Amino acid sequence: MVAGRLYFASDPELVADRTAARKLHATYYADPSARILHRLLKTMDKEEPAFIEPPFTVDYGYNVTIGKGVYMNFNCCLLDCAPIIVGDNVLFGPNVQVYPPGHPQDPSFRDGLRGPEYAKPVTIGSDVWVGGGAIILGGVTVGEGATVGAGSVVTKDVPPWTVVAGNPARVIRRVERGDRSHSGIE
Amino acid sequence: MVAGRLYFASDPELVADRTAARKLHATYYADPSARILHRLLKTMDKEEPAFIEPPFTVDYGYNVTIGKGVYMNFNCCLLDCAPIIVGDNVLFGPNVQVYPPGHPQDPSFRDGLRGPEYAKPVTIGSDVWVGGGAIILGGVTVGEGATVGAGSVVTKDVPPWTVVAGNPARVIRRVERGDRSHSGIE
Amino acid sequence: MVAGRLYFASDPELVADRTAARKLHATYYADPSARILHRLLKTMDKEEPAFIEPPFTVDYGYNVTIGKGVYMNFNCCLLDCAPIIVGDNVLFGPNVQVYPPGHPQDPSFRDGLRGPEYAKPVTIGSDVWVGGGAIILGGVTVGEGATVGAGSVVTKDVPPWTVVAGNPARVIRRVERGDRSHSGIE
Repeated sequence: MVAGRLYFASDPELVADRTAARKLHATYYADPSARILHRLLKTMDKEEPAFIEPPFTVDYGYNVTIGKGVYMNFNCCLLDCAPIIVGDNVLFGPNVQVYPPGHPQDPSFRDGLRGPEYAKPVTIGSDVWVGGGAIILGGVTVGEGATVGAGSVVTKDVPPWTVVAGNPARVIRRVERGDRSHSGIE
Repeated sequence: MVAGRLYFASDPELVADRTAARKLHATYYADPSARILHRLLKTMDKEEPAFIEPPFTVDYGYNVTIGKGVYMNFNCCLLDCAPIIVGDNVLFGPNVQVYPPGHPQDPSFRDGLRGPEYAKPVTIGSDVWVGGGAIILGGVTVGEGATVGAGSVVTKDVPPWTVVAGNPARVIRRVERGDRSHSGIE
Repeated sequence: MVAGRLYFASDPELVADRTAARKLHATYYADPSARILHRLLKTMDKEEPAFIEPPFTVDYGYNVTIGKGVYMNFNCCLLDCAPIIVGDNVLFGPNVQVYPPGHPQDPSFRDGLRGPEYAKPVTIGSDVWVGGGAIILGGVTVGEGATVGAGSVVTKDVPPWTVVAGNPARVIRRVERGDRSHSGIE
Protein backbone atom coordinates (compact mmCIF):
# COMPACT_ATOMS: atom_id res chain seq x y z
CA MET A 1 0.00 0.00 0.00
CA VAL A 2 2.61 2.55 1.05
CA ALA A 3 4.72 1.62 -2.01
CA GLY A 4 2.06 3.12 -4.31
CA ARG A 5 0.87 -0.19 -5.81
CA LEU A 6 -2.74 -1.21 -6.19
CA TYR A 7 -4.09 -2.79 -3.00
CA PHE A 8 -7.41 -3.83 -1.54
CA ALA A 9 -8.65 -1.82 1.43
CA SER A 10 -10.83 -4.82 2.28
CA ASP A 11 -7.69 -6.75 3.36
CA PRO A 12 -8.49 -7.99 6.92
CA GLU A 13 -5.30 -6.60 8.44
CA LEU A 14 -6.00 -3.13 7.00
CA VAL A 15 -9.62 -3.30 8.16
CA ALA A 16 -8.47 -4.14 11.68
CA ASP A 17 -6.02 -1.24 11.71
CA ARG A 18 -8.63 1.23 10.45
CA THR A 19 -11.17 -0.04 12.98
CA ALA A 20 -8.69 0.59 15.78
CA ALA A 21 -8.07 4.14 14.51
CA ARG A 22 -11.80 4.78 14.21
CA LYS A 23 -12.35 3.88 17.86
CA LEU A 24 -9.64 6.33 18.84
CA HIS A 25 -11.37 9.09 16.81
CA ALA A 26 -14.52 8.88 18.92
CA THR A 27 -12.47 8.58 22.12
CA TYR A 28 -10.44 11.63 21.17
CA TYR A 29 -13.57 13.68 20.46
CA ALA A 30 -14.99 12.93 23.90
CA ASP A 31 -11.62 13.43 25.63
CA PRO A 32 -9.02 15.33 23.55
CA SER A 33 -6.02 14.42 25.68
CA ALA A 34 -2.48 14.15 24.37
CA ARG A 35 -2.35 10.51 25.47
CA ILE A 36 -4.96 9.45 22.92
CA LEU A 37 -3.38 11.53 20.17
CA HIS A 38 -0.04 9.83 20.80
CA ARG A 39 -1.68 6.44 20.29
CA LEU A 40 -3.20 7.61 17.00
CA LEU A 41 -0.05 9.32 15.69
CA LYS A 42 3.04 7.53 16.83
CA THR A 43 5.55 9.83 15.17
CA MET A 44 4.97 13.23 16.72
CA ASP A 45 7.82 15.25 18.14
CA LYS A 46 8.16 14.41 21.85
CA GLU A 47 9.31 17.82 23.08
CA GLU A 48 6.98 20.00 21.03
CA PRO A 49 4.13 17.66 20.12
CA ALA A 50 1.39 18.72 17.75
CA PHE A 51 -1.80 20.22 19.08
CA ILE A 52 -4.73 18.83 17.10
CA GLU A 53 -8.29 19.92 17.75
CA PRO A 54 -10.95 17.22 17.78
CA PRO A 55 -12.68 15.83 15.83
CA PHE A 56 -9.73 14.45 13.87
CA THR A 57 -9.68 11.47 11.51
CA VAL A 58 -6.98 9.34 9.94
CA ASP A 59 -7.12 6.06 8.05
CA TYR A 60 -4.31 4.37 9.98
CA GLY A 61 -2.29 7.04 11.76
CA TYR A 62 0.98 5.11 11.58
CA ASN A 63 1.83 6.53 8.14
CA VAL A 64 1.73 10.12 9.37
CA THR A 65 4.95 11.85 10.44
CA ILE A 66 4.48 15.17 12.19
CA GLY A 67 7.21 17.66 13.08
CA LYS A 68 7.46 19.95 16.08
CA GLY A 69 5.16 22.85 16.92
CA VAL A 70 2.39 21.76 14.53
CA TYR A 71 -1.21 22.91 14.96
CA MET A 72 -4.31 21.45 13.26
CA ASN A 73 -7.73 22.95 13.83
CA PHE A 74 -11.11 21.13 14.06
CA ASN A 75 -12.09 18.33 11.76
CA CYS A 76 -8.91 17.72 9.79
CA CYS A 77 -8.71 14.41 7.91
CA LEU A 78 -5.52 12.64 6.84
CA LEU A 79 -6.04 9.52 4.70
CA ASP A 80 -2.62 8.01 5.31
CA CYS A 81 -2.75 5.08 2.89
CA ALA A 82 0.62 6.43 1.73
CA PRO A 83 3.07 8.42 3.86
CA ILE A 84 1.98 11.89 4.90
CA ILE A 85 4.92 13.96 6.09
CA VAL A 86 4.20 17.24 7.87
CA GLY A 87 7.20 19.47 8.64
CA ASP A 88 7.89 21.68 11.66
CA ASN A 89 5.65 24.60 12.67
CA VAL A 90 2.95 23.74 10.12
CA LEU A 91 -0.50 25.28 10.66
CA PHE A 92 -3.70 23.65 9.40
CA GLY A 93 -7.00 25.54 9.52
CA PRO A 94 -10.21 23.63 10.25
CA ASN A 95 -11.47 20.96 7.86
CA VAL A 96 -8.17 20.53 5.98
CA GLN A 97 -8.29 17.31 3.98
CA VAL A 98 -5.21 15.37 2.86
CA TYR A 99 -6.13 12.62 0.39
CA PRO A 100 -3.32 10.29 -0.76
CA PRO A 101 -5.58 7.46 -2.00
CA GLY A 102 -7.25 7.21 -5.36
CA HIS A 103 -9.32 4.76 -7.39
CA PRO A 104 -8.91 3.86 -11.06
CA GLN A 105 -10.60 6.44 -13.30
CA ASP A 106 -11.78 3.63 -15.57
CA PRO A 107 -14.85 2.43 -13.65
CA SER A 108 -14.51 -1.09 -15.05
CA PHE A 109 -11.42 -1.42 -12.79
CA ARG A 110 -13.20 -0.05 -9.70
CA ASP A 111 -15.77 -2.47 -8.17
CA GLY A 112 -16.94 -0.45 -5.14
CA LEU A 113 -16.12 -1.62 -1.63
CA ARG A 114 -14.22 -4.68 -2.86
CA GLY A 115 -12.19 -2.93 -5.55
CA PRO A 116 -8.52 -1.92 -5.79
CA GLU A 117 -7.11 1.45 -4.89
CA TYR A 118 -3.69 3.09 -4.80
CA ALA A 119 -2.13 5.93 -2.88
CA LYS A 120 0.60 8.54 -3.41
CA PRO A 121 2.52 10.29 -0.62
CA VAL A 122 1.98 13.90 0.43
CA THR A 123 4.77 16.08 1.84
CA ILE A 124 4.10 19.39 3.55
CA GLY A 125 7.21 21.47 4.18
CA SER A 126 8.05 23.31 7.37
CA ASP A 127 6.40 26.66 8.15
CA VAL A 128 3.49 26.02 5.78
CA TRP A 129 0.04 27.39 6.55
CA VAL A 130 -2.83 25.44 4.98
CA GLY A 131 -6.03 27.48 5.14
CA GLY A 132 -9.27 25.95 6.36
CA GLY A 133 -11.21 23.64 4.07
CA ALA A 134 -8.29 23.15 1.67
CA ILE A 135 -7.89 19.75 0.01
CA ILE A 136 -4.42 18.36 -0.81
CA LEU A 137 -4.33 15.42 -3.21
CA GLY A 138 -1.95 12.47 -3.36
CA GLY A 139 1.46 13.03 -4.94
CA VAL A 140 1.61 16.69 -3.93
CA THR A 141 4.54 18.41 -2.20
CA VAL A 142 3.78 21.75 -0.57
CA GLY A 143 7.04 23.70 -0.44
CA GLU A 144 8.50 25.20 2.73
CA GLY A 145 6.88 28.42 3.90
CA ALA A 146 3.99 28.29 1.43
CA THR A 147 0.46 29.48 2.18
CA VAL A 148 -2.48 27.48 0.81
CA GLY A 149 -5.61 29.65 0.65
CA ALA A 150 -8.77 28.52 2.42
CA GLY A 151 -10.86 26.21 0.25
CA SER A 152 -8.09 25.54 -2.28
CA VAL A 153 -7.97 22.21 -4.10
CA VAL A 154 -4.26 21.43 -4.47
CA THR A 155 -3.65 19.06 -7.38
CA LYS A 156 0.05 19.72 -8.04
CA ASP A 157 3.17 20.84 -6.21
CA VAL A 158 3.19 24.22 -4.49
CA PRO A 159 6.49 26.16 -4.76
CA PRO A 160 8.11 27.32 -1.49
CA TRP A 161 7.28 30.85 -0.26
CA THR A 162 4.25 31.24 -2.49
CA VAL A 163 0.55 31.74 -1.83
CA VAL A 164 -1.79 29.48 -3.82
CA ALA A 165 -5.57 29.64 -4.01
CA GLY A 166 -8.52 28.42 -6.07
CA ASN A 167 -9.90 25.21 -7.49
CA PRO A 168 -7.57 23.99 -8.85
CA ALA A 169 -5.04 25.94 -6.78
CA ARG A 170 -2.70 28.32 -8.65
CA VAL A 171 0.08 30.61 -7.44
CA ILE A 172 -1.41 34.05 -6.74
CA ARG A 173 1.56 35.64 -4.98
CA ARG A 174 5.25 35.16 -4.15
CA VAL A 175 6.36 36.18 -0.67
CA GLU A 176 9.67 37.86 0.15
CA ARG A 177 11.27 37.66 3.58
CA GLY A 178 10.23 40.72 5.61
CA ASP A 179 7.11 41.40 3.53
CA ARG A 180 4.60 42.70 6.06
CA SER A 181 1.58 42.90 3.75
CA HIS A 182 -1.12 40.35 4.58
CA SER A 183 0.61 39.80 7.88
CA GLY A 184 -1.68 41.52 10.35
CA ILE A 185 1.19 43.87 11.19
CA GLU A 186 0.18 46.88 9.05
CA MET B 1 -41.60 17.51 0.58
CA VAL B 2 -40.35 14.62 -1.58
CA ALA B 3 -42.62 15.82 -4.45
CA GLY B 4 -40.50 18.95 -4.83
CA ARG B 5 -43.12 21.41 -3.54
CA LEU B 6 -42.46 24.14 -1.00
CA TYR B 7 -42.72 22.81 2.55
CA PHE B 8 -41.91 23.93 6.07
CA ALA B 9 -39.09 22.08 7.81
CA SER B 10 -40.61 23.30 11.09
CA ASP B 11 -43.54 20.86 10.61
CA PRO B 12 -43.68 18.88 13.90
CA GLU B 13 -43.63 15.48 12.16
CA LEU B 14 -40.51 16.40 10.17
CA VAL B 15 -38.85 17.81 13.31
CA ALA B 16 -39.52 14.54 15.14
CA ASP B 17 -38.05 12.49 12.28
CA ARG B 18 -34.93 14.66 12.08
CA THR B 19 -34.49 14.53 15.85
CA ALA B 20 -34.58 10.73 15.71
CA ALA B 21 -31.96 10.71 12.95
CA ARG B 22 -29.76 13.13 14.89
CA LYS B 23 -29.72 10.85 17.92
CA LEU B 24 -28.61 7.98 15.68
CA HIS B 25 -25.75 10.11 14.31
CA ALA B 26 -24.19 10.50 17.74
CA THR B 27 -24.83 6.84 18.55
CA TYR B 28 -23.22 5.76 15.29
CA TYR B 29 -20.14 7.90 15.95
CA ALA B 30 -19.59 6.30 19.34
CA ASP B 31 -20.37 2.78 18.03
CA PRO B 32 -20.23 2.42 14.23
CA SER B 33 -22.00 -0.92 14.04
CA ALA B 34 -24.06 -2.07 11.06
CA ARG B 35 -27.12 -2.36 13.29
CA ILE B 36 -27.31 1.40 13.84
CA LEU B 37 -26.64 2.15 10.19
CA HIS B 38 -29.55 -0.10 9.19
CA ARG B 39 -31.85 1.90 11.44
CA LEU B 40 -30.69 5.15 9.85
CA LEU B 41 -30.82 3.91 6.23
CA LYS B 42 -33.58 1.41 5.77
CA THR B 43 -32.97 0.73 2.09
CA MET B 44 -29.47 -0.69 1.92
CA ASP B 45 -28.73 -3.90 0.06
CA LYS B 46 -29.01 -6.80 2.55
CA GLU B 47 -26.32 -9.05 1.04
CA GLU B 48 -23.72 -6.41 0.28
CA PRO B 49 -24.65 -3.54 2.61
CA ALA B 50 -22.90 -0.21 2.41
CA PHE B 51 -19.93 0.51 4.62
CA ILE B 52 -20.15 4.06 5.89
CA GLU B 53 -17.48 5.60 8.10
CA PRO B 54 -18.64 7.72 11.02
CA PRO B 55 -19.41 10.51 11.54
CA PHE B 56 -22.28 10.41 9.04
CA THR B 57 -25.29 12.70 8.86
CA VAL B 58 -28.64 12.60 7.09
CA ASP B 59 -31.76 14.71 7.45
CA TYR B 60 -34.21 11.79 7.61
CA GLY B 61 -32.47 8.69 6.23
CA TYR B 62 -35.66 7.13 4.86
CA ASN B 63 -35.38 8.99 1.55
CA VAL B 64 -31.95 7.51 0.79
CA THR B 65 -31.72 4.38 -1.39
CA ILE B 66 -28.30 2.76 -1.47
CA GLY B 67 -27.19 -0.06 -3.79
CA LYS B 68 -24.80 -2.91 -3.08
CA GLY B 69 -21.09 -2.62 -2.38
CA VAL B 70 -21.20 1.12 -1.60
CA TYR B 71 -18.51 2.82 0.48
CA MET B 72 -18.66 6.28 2.04
CA ASN B 73 -15.72 7.71 3.94
CA PHE B 74 -15.76 9.96 7.07
CA ASN B 75 -18.17 12.83 7.51
CA CYS B 76 -20.44 12.46 4.50
CA CYS B 77 -23.74 14.34 4.66
CA LEU B 78 -26.91 13.49 2.74
CA LEU B 79 -29.77 15.99 3.14
CA ASP B 80 -32.53 13.66 1.98
CA CYS B 81 -35.44 16.11 1.87
CA ALA B 82 -35.97 14.67 -1.63
CA PRO B 83 -34.98 11.15 -2.76
CA ILE B 84 -31.25 10.44 -2.96
CA ILE B 85 -30.57 7.34 -5.03
CA VAL B 86 -27.08 5.86 -4.91
CA GLY B 87 -26.33 3.02 -7.36
CA ASP B 88 -24.21 -0.10 -6.90
CA ASN B 89 -20.49 0.03 -6.12
CA VAL B 90 -20.45 3.78 -5.60
CA LEU B 91 -17.46 5.24 -3.72
CA PHE B 92 -17.64 8.48 -1.72
CA GLY B 93 -14.48 10.10 -0.37
CA PRO B 94 -14.60 11.87 2.99
CA ASN B 95 -16.77 14.96 3.50
CA VAL B 96 -18.94 14.41 0.39
CA GLN B 97 -22.03 16.58 0.66
CA VAL B 98 -25.32 15.86 -1.17
CA TYR B 99 -27.71 18.79 -0.87
CA PRO B 100 -31.22 18.35 -2.36
CA PRO B 101 -32.89 21.20 -0.43
CA GLY B 102 -32.90 24.85 -1.33
CA HIS B 103 -34.45 28.09 -0.19
CA PRO B 104 -36.04 30.80 -2.34
CA GLN B 105 -33.39 33.11 -3.81
CA ASP B 106 -35.69 36.07 -3.21
CA PRO B 107 -35.05 36.72 0.50
CA SER B 108 -38.52 38.20 0.96
CA PHE B 109 -39.82 34.60 0.54
CA ARG B 110 -37.33 33.11 3.02
CA ASP B 111 -38.04 33.97 6.69
CA GLY B 112 -35.26 32.03 8.44
CA LEU B 113 -36.05 29.02 10.61
CA ARG B 114 -39.79 29.31 9.99
CA GLY B 115 -39.63 29.81 6.23
CA PRO B 116 -40.44 27.54 3.28
CA GLU B 117 -37.94 25.38 1.43
CA TYR B 118 -38.03 22.92 -1.45
CA ALA B 119 -35.92 19.97 -2.52
CA LYS B 120 -34.95 18.23 -5.76
CA PRO B 121 -33.81 14.61 -6.02
CA VAL B 122 -30.23 13.50 -6.64
CA THR B 123 -29.34 10.31 -8.51
CA ILE B 124 -25.84 8.86 -8.50
CA GLY B 125 -25.33 6.08 -11.03
CA SER B 126 -23.56 2.79 -10.40
CA ASP B 127 -19.75 2.65 -10.34
CA VAL B 128 -19.39 6.37 -9.66
CA TRP B 129 -16.50 7.68 -7.56
CA VAL B 130 -17.19 11.00 -5.84
CA GLY B 131 -13.93 12.51 -4.58
CA GLY B 132 -13.62 13.86 -1.07
CA GLY B 133 -15.15 17.21 -0.22
CA ALA B 134 -17.28 17.31 -3.38
CA ILE B 135 -20.72 18.94 -3.17
CA ILE B 136 -23.64 17.67 -5.28
CA LEU B 137 -26.66 19.96 -5.53
CA GLY B 138 -30.35 19.11 -5.83
CA GLY B 139 -31.64 18.09 -9.25
CA VAL B 140 -28.33 16.58 -10.36
CA THR B 141 -27.85 13.13 -11.93
CA VAL B 142 -24.30 11.79 -11.92
CA GLY B 143 -24.04 9.34 -14.81
CA GLU B 144 -22.85 5.73 -14.41
CA GLY B 145 -19.11 5.28 -14.09
CA ALA B 146 -18.34 8.97 -13.71
CA THR B 147 -15.59 10.40 -11.50
CA VAL B 148 -16.24 13.62 -9.57
CA GLY B 149 -12.96 15.30 -8.63
CA ALA B 150 -12.23 16.11 -5.00
CA GLY B 151 -13.67 19.46 -3.98
CA SER B 152 -15.93 19.80 -7.05
CA VAL B 153 -19.19 21.70 -6.77
CA VAL B 154 -21.61 19.82 -9.04
CA THR B 155 -24.44 22.08 -10.19
CA LYS B 156 -25.63 20.17 -13.27
CA ASP B 157 -25.75 16.64 -14.64
CA VAL B 158 -22.50 14.71 -15.08
CA PRO B 159 -22.34 12.53 -18.24
CA PRO B 160 -21.51 8.83 -17.76
CA TRP B 161 -17.86 7.79 -18.01
CA THR B 162 -16.51 11.31 -17.63
CA VAL B 163 -14.29 13.02 -15.07
CA VAL B 164 -15.55 16.38 -13.80
CA ALA B 165 -13.74 18.83 -11.55
CA GLY B 166 -13.81 22.45 -10.41
CA ASN B 167 -16.24 24.97 -8.96
CA PRO B 168 -18.60 24.77 -10.77
CA ALA B 169 -17.67 21.27 -11.98
CA ARG B 170 -16.96 20.84 -15.71
CA VAL B 171 -15.99 17.78 -17.77
CA ILE B 172 -12.19 17.57 -17.89
CA ARG B 173 -11.83 14.10 -19.42
CA ARG B 174 -13.77 11.26 -21.05
CA VAL B 175 -12.79 7.74 -20.05
CA GLU B 176 -12.65 4.75 -22.44
CA ARG B 177 -13.00 1.18 -21.21
CA GLY B 178 -9.53 -0.26 -20.65
CA ASP B 179 -7.88 3.14 -20.23
CA ARG B 180 -5.19 2.56 -17.62
CA SER B 181 -4.04 6.16 -17.23
CA HIS B 182 -4.91 7.64 -13.84
CA SER B 183 -5.63 4.12 -12.65
CA GLY B 184 -2.68 3.37 -10.39
CA ILE B 185 -1.76 0.54 -12.76
CA GLU B 186 0.93 2.31 -14.79
CA MET C 1 -7.46 39.82 19.86
CA VAL C 2 -10.87 41.22 19.00
CA ALA C 3 -9.29 44.59 18.14
CA GLY C 4 -7.57 43.04 15.12
CA ARG C 5 -4.02 43.23 16.52
CA LEU C 6 -1.51 40.40 16.46
CA TYR C 7 -1.98 38.07 19.43
CA PHE C 8 -0.78 34.71 20.62
CA ALA C 9 -3.38 31.94 20.71
CA SER C 10 -1.08 30.17 23.20
CA ASP C 11 -1.98 32.78 25.86
CA PRO C 12 -3.12 30.72 28.89
CA GLU C 13 -6.41 32.60 29.29
CA LEU C 14 -7.34 32.02 25.63
CA VAL C 15 -6.34 28.35 25.88
CA ALA C 16 -8.59 27.93 28.92
CA ASP C 17 -11.52 29.57 27.11
CA ARG C 18 -11.06 27.39 24.02
CA THR C 19 -10.75 24.26 26.14
CA ALA C 20 -14.07 25.08 27.81
CA ALA C 21 -15.73 25.56 24.40
CA ARG C 22 -14.25 22.29 23.12
CA LYS C 23 -15.80 20.36 26.00
CA LEU C 24 -19.17 21.88 25.18
CA HIS C 25 -18.80 20.77 21.53
CA ALA C 26 -18.62 17.10 22.48
CA THR C 27 -21.39 17.53 25.05
CA TYR C 28 -23.60 19.21 22.45
CA TYR C 29 -23.00 16.42 19.93
CA ALA C 30 -24.11 13.77 22.42
CA ASP C 31 -27.04 15.86 23.67
CA PRO C 32 -28.05 18.74 21.35
CA SER C 33 -30.20 20.58 23.86
CA ALA C 34 -30.80 24.33 23.83
CA ARG C 35 -29.30 24.57 27.32
CA ILE C 36 -25.83 23.61 26.12
CA LEU C 37 -26.05 25.85 23.06
CA HIS C 38 -26.90 28.82 25.31
CA ARG C 39 -23.74 28.18 27.32
CA LEU C 40 -21.67 28.10 24.12
CA LEU C 41 -23.30 31.17 22.51
CA LYS C 42 -24.33 33.69 25.11
CA THR C 43 -25.81 36.23 22.71
CA MET C 44 -28.65 34.44 20.98
CA ASP C 45 -32.11 35.97 20.82
CA LYS C 46 -34.11 34.74 23.83
CA GLU C 47 -37.52 34.62 22.16
CA GLU C 48 -36.54 33.10 18.83
CA PRO C 49 -33.21 31.42 19.59
CA ALA C 50 -31.12 29.89 16.85
CA PHE C 51 -31.47 26.22 16.00
CA ILE C 52 -28.01 24.78 15.35
CA GLU C 53 -27.51 21.17 14.33
CA PRO C 54 -24.64 19.30 15.96
CA PRO C 55 -21.75 18.89 15.55
CA PHE C 56 -20.98 22.59 15.87
CA THR C 57 -17.64 24.20 16.67
CA VAL C 58 -16.52 27.65 17.77
CA ASP C 59 -13.21 28.94 19.07
CA TYR C 60 -14.65 30.86 22.04
CA GLY C 61 -18.37 31.37 21.44
CA TYR C 62 -18.53 34.65 23.33
CA ASN C 63 -17.57 36.69 20.26
CA VAL C 64 -20.54 35.42 18.24
CA THR C 65 -23.74 37.49 18.12
CA ILE C 66 -26.72 35.70 16.60
CA GLY C 67 -30.08 37.27 15.69
CA LYS C 68 -33.52 35.75 15.87
CA GLY C 69 -34.83 32.87 13.79
CA VAL C 70 -31.38 31.69 12.68
CA TYR C 71 -30.74 28.11 11.48
CA MET C 72 -27.37 26.41 11.01
CA ASN C 73 -27.13 22.89 9.66
CA PHE C 74 -24.63 20.13 10.65
CA ASN C 75 -20.96 20.80 11.20
CA CYS C 76 -20.76 24.57 10.95
CA CYS C 77 -17.59 26.15 12.34
CA LEU C 78 -17.23 29.74 13.56
CA LEU C 79 -13.70 30.78 14.52
CA ASP C 80 -14.68 33.78 16.61
CA CYS C 81 -11.25 35.25 17.32
CA ALA C 82 -12.85 38.50 16.12
CA PRO C 83 -16.56 39.37 16.35
CA ILE C 84 -18.89 37.33 14.15
CA ILE C 85 -22.26 39.04 13.80
CA VAL C 86 -25.10 37.03 12.28
CA GLY C 87 -28.34 38.93 11.54
CA ASP C 88 -31.95 37.80 11.84
CA ASN C 89 -33.40 34.88 9.88
CA VAL C 90 -30.03 33.80 8.51
CA LEU C 91 -29.78 30.26 7.11
CA PHE C 92 -26.52 28.28 7.03
CA GLY C 93 -26.29 25.01 5.12
CA PRO C 94 -24.12 22.19 6.51
CA ASN C 95 -20.38 22.62 6.85
CA VAL C 96 -20.39 26.42 6.55
CA GLN C 97 -17.05 27.76 7.75
CA VAL C 98 -16.50 31.32 9.03
CA TYR C 99 -12.82 32.08 9.45
CA PRO C 100 -11.88 35.48 10.98
CA PRO C 101 -8.30 34.54 11.99
CA GLY C 102 -5.24 34.59 9.80
CA HIS C 103 -1.51 34.12 10.08
CA PRO C 104 1.22 36.29 8.54
CA GLN C 105 1.83 35.34 4.90
CA ASP C 106 5.56 35.81 5.43
CA PRO C 107 6.46 32.48 7.05
CA SER C 108 9.38 34.02 8.92
CA PHE C 109 6.74 35.78 11.08
CA ARG C 110 4.72 32.59 11.69
CA ASP C 111 6.39 30.08 14.06
CA GLY C 112 3.73 27.35 14.24
CA LEU C 113 1.82 26.73 17.43
CA ARG C 114 3.66 29.45 19.31
CA GLY C 115 3.38 32.12 16.63
CA PRO C 116 1.27 35.28 16.32
CA GLU C 117 -2.05 35.54 14.52
CA TYR C 118 -4.65 38.21 13.89
CA ALA C 119 -8.36 38.23 13.18
CA LYS C 120 -10.85 40.41 11.31
CA PRO C 121 -14.59 40.54 12.02
CA VAL C 122 -17.27 38.97 9.83
CA THR C 123 -20.78 40.42 9.50
CA ILE C 124 -23.62 38.48 7.92
CA GLY C 125 -26.72 40.58 7.23
CA SER C 126 -30.29 39.58 7.97
CA ASP C 127 -32.12 37.20 5.61
CA VAL C 128 -28.89 35.81 4.14
CA TRP C 129 -28.70 32.17 3.01
CA VAL C 130 -25.18 30.71 3.06
CA GLY C 131 -25.13 27.47 1.07
CA GLY C 132 -23.50 24.35 2.46
CA GLY C 133 -19.72 24.07 2.48
CA ALA C 134 -19.20 27.77 1.84
CA ILE C 135 -16.20 29.47 3.46
CA ILE C 136 -16.35 33.12 4.59
CA LEU C 137 -13.05 34.79 5.36
CA GLY C 138 -12.17 37.45 7.92
CA GLY C 139 -13.03 41.04 7.06
CA VAL C 140 -16.04 40.10 4.92
CA THR C 141 -19.52 41.60 5.16
CA VAL C 142 -22.29 39.62 3.49
CA GLY C 143 -25.06 42.10 2.62
CA GLU C 144 -28.68 41.70 3.70
CA GLY C 145 -30.71 39.21 1.69
CA ALA C 146 -27.75 37.79 -0.22
CA THR C 147 -27.37 34.13 -1.23
CA VAL C 148 -23.93 32.52 -1.05
CA GLY C 149 -23.78 29.46 -3.32
CA ALA C 150 -22.78 26.10 -1.88
CA GLY C 151 -19.02 25.63 -1.81
CA SER C 152 -18.24 29.31 -2.42
CA VAL C 153 -15.05 30.80 -1.00
CA VAL C 154 -15.99 34.35 -0.02
CA THR C 155 -12.92 36.58 0.08
CA LYS C 156 -14.57 40.02 -0.23
CA ASP C 157 -17.85 41.77 0.58
CA VAL C 158 -21.05 40.42 -0.94
CA PRO C 159 -23.56 43.10 -2.04
CA PRO C 160 -27.10 42.87 -0.63
CA TRP C 161 -29.71 40.97 -2.69
CA THR C 162 -27.16 39.23 -4.89
CA VAL C 163 -26.23 35.61 -5.46
CA VAL C 164 -22.51 34.84 -5.35
CA ALA C 165 -20.79 31.56 -6.22
CA GLY C 166 -17.40 30.08 -7.06
CA ASN C 167 -13.88 30.07 -5.70
CA PRO C 168 -13.28 32.95 -5.25
CA ALA C 169 -16.96 33.90 -5.03
CA ARG C 170 -18.27 36.38 -7.63
CA VAL C 171 -21.72 37.90 -8.17
CA ILE C 172 -23.64 35.67 -10.61
CA ARG C 173 -27.10 37.22 -10.24
CA ARG C 174 -28.98 40.17 -8.75
CA VAL C 175 -32.35 39.41 -7.19
CA GLU C 176 -35.42 41.66 -7.42
CA ARG C 177 -38.20 41.57 -4.86
CA GLY C 178 -40.95 39.23 -6.10
CA ASP C 179 -38.64 37.29 -8.43
CA ARG C 180 -39.95 33.72 -8.26
CA SER C 181 -37.23 32.08 -10.34
CA HIS C 182 -34.98 29.79 -8.31
CA SER C 183 -37.54 29.95 -5.55
CA GLY C 184 -39.17 26.53 -5.71
CA ILE C 185 -42.44 28.27 -6.51
CA GLU C 186 -42.46 27.84 -10.30
